[in-house]
Amino acid sequence: MSDSTNITMKDIARDLGVSVATVSRALKDSPRISAEKREEIKKYAQEHNFYPNILAESLRKSKVQPMKIIGVIVPQLAHFYFSSILSGIEEEASSHGYRLMVAQSKENYENEVKICRAFSESKVCGIIVSQAKNTTKYDHFQTLLEKGVPLVFYDRISTGVNASRVVVDDYMGAFTAVTHLINIGCKRIAYYGTSLTMEIAKNRYNGYRDALLKNGMHPDEQLIRNCDNRADAELITPDVMQLPQPPDAFFAVNDDTAIGILYSCKRLGFRVPEDVSICGFTNGQRAIACDPMLTTVEQRGVRVGEEAASILIDQVEGRLPKNRVERRVVRTRLILRGTTR
Amino acid sequence: MSDSTNITMKDIARDLGVSVATVSRALKDSPRISAEKREEIKKYAQEHNFYPNILAESLRKSKVQPMKIIGVIVPQLAHFYFSSILSGIEEEASSHGYRLMVAQSKENYENEVKICRAFSESKVCGIIVSQAKNTTKYDHFQTLLEKGVPLVFYDRISTGVNASRVVVDDYMGAFTAVTHLINIGCKRIAYYGTSLTMEIAKNRYNGYRDALLKNGMHPDEQLIRNCDNRADAELITPDVMQLPQPPDAFFAVNDDTAIGILYSCKRLGFRVPEDVSICGFTNGQRAIACDPMLTTVEQRGVRVGEEAASILIDQVEGRLPKNRVERRVVRTRLILRGTTR
Repeated sequence: MSDSTNITMKDIARDLGVSVATVSRALKDSPRISAEKREEIKKYAQEHNFYPNILAESLRKSKVQPMKIIGVIVPQLAHFYFSSILSGIEEEASSHGYRLMVAQSKENYENEVKICRAFSESKVCGIIVSQAKNTTKYDHFQTLLEKGVPLVFYDRISTGVNASRVVVDDYMGAFTAVTHLINIGCKRIAYYGTSLTMEIAKNRYNGYRDALLKNGMHPDEQLIRNCDNRADAELITPDVMQLPQPPDAFFAVNDDTAIGILYSCKRLGFRVPEDVSICGFTNGQRAIACDPMLTTVEQRGVRVGEEAASILIDQVEGRLPKNRVERRVVRTRLILRGTTR
Repeated sequence: MSDSTNITMKDIARDLGVSVATVSRALKDSPRISAEKREEIKKYAQEHNFYPNILAESLRKSKVQPMKIIGVIVPQLAHFYFSSILSGIEEEASSHGYRLMVAQSKENYENEVKICRAFSESKVCGIIVSQAKNTTKYDHFQTLLEKGVPLVFYDRISTGVNASRVVVDDYMGAFTAVTHLINIGCKRIAYYGTSLTMEIAKNRYNGYRDALLKNGMHPDEQLIRNCDNRADAELITPDVMQLPQPPDAFFAVNDDTAIGILYSCKRLGFRVPEDVSICGFTNGQRAIACDPMLTTVEQRGVRVGEEAASILIDQVEGRLPKNRVERRVVRTRLILRGTTR
């Protein structure tokens, strides 16, 4: 935690008209201070959320710069988009002299809670986090905010907590992609996406729906599928392509799913993009490995990471008020490649 | 740094027959200790490489567990193989109650030196590192070892430093893959790899060469190319395929290069695998996104990361002697897919 967010021993000493040494001794229960005085000081410290920052204190004493460490929680490390974001965070942080403590929740709420606690004990100056898929309670984040630890969400933001956040313009990314599919002549555009409990899923779906509506088309329940990975996409696409009125285009919530659709269509004998156009979302390494290469919405992970770190550092260093909720949106880019006409 | 790797103030006090407080005061140049005594204690501390570990000391005093932080240096974070390794390190470390401080060298020697210094100042208990591509001096690593900071290399090991290391069996991986190509009837097998300054490049090349020699074939200079990325592979493959005696198979030093060869061959009208077989090295996300899917040598990054963290933690906690050089080899696996007959 940065010095600016906490009351210090110096503050307590000044407020109570005693020396810093007295405060320090009282908080350590030293018999050199009267029991009465000790109680008074400890009560005051508690009421003002004094957080005995041993580390910062020892470093201050030794005249070494206080450690500037940012905690980063990543749902999965071996994941292209998250590792791009981590790279952006690292670049921005290291250029400002901050170091990163990194942990992965492995998409698990309990791990996330433990990491928050560990980071808080390690006196990180702030935390940058994307929540686990199964996180639906937010006490652990709320506790950090109450302790004055700046918190910045990226990608999967928490609607249950009022904290700063960086997302990509999921709605506009999807809207632009689907509008492009309509402009090149696609009439029946399927949507493969995740359940709508996550903000990003909701926004991408809404972008898809609004692009259809704006162009006089109507979402067809038969073409809207709950699917967010390649294995499932390969499983369900044969059925979707055997509908009486099969789709002539797919918009998928990520590249992995789009590639499942691509291979499924090719195996079924459909030509991509002549018979079927496909658009993904991510623009990871897979998007240029597949054949034809994938048209997709680029999520710009590095930029997302840089923005998240930048907000956090501004709050830690006082350029942004610590209780200000920043909402930043990184623009996506539609990358046209071989899977669309 | 762990307590076990350094002489402590307690040790000095015992050895000189004075109190710990006296040692502490002498090292802080307190006038409460005679100039003579101060000199004696400081000289002894210096001779025994006493490293005033302010952090550990303050934590010891406050009876909080000393911070268990491992520094990890990654050449690039947005990179499938390295992020897999980081994931393995994180899993092993967190299961033992260690936290990770992560920094990327961005393949740059100067950054690597700065990170080593920063990690050392942060009193990490050890460092896990894969060196930058352009690192050819090793003083920064040597300094850490001399300070007693355990060091474990992964993937790109440093031949200039005698430290523990975890690599995959690059030689056997290549040997097995090329032997497979020979067994399925390939007669002219090309090799695309990096220059031989890096250990891994040397070992993979030797595996290729020895598989040929063992089967009565001879490396053909025309088929051995200095190429380790897709763009270069797409550039040079047309020439290679127009040789009077073109190759009927390729072994590439990574998946990215293999995919460049694949698309180049397809564009030139060759059928994969009927006319040309291709084998990569990595087994990243790209390997199953390309069409046909890539036969490749799996590098098992998560396992490499787990082994590296395990060695480091064993050294920190005294289960392995701190000056013992551990060399662990993670076995690769040949994954057969559509690019080989």
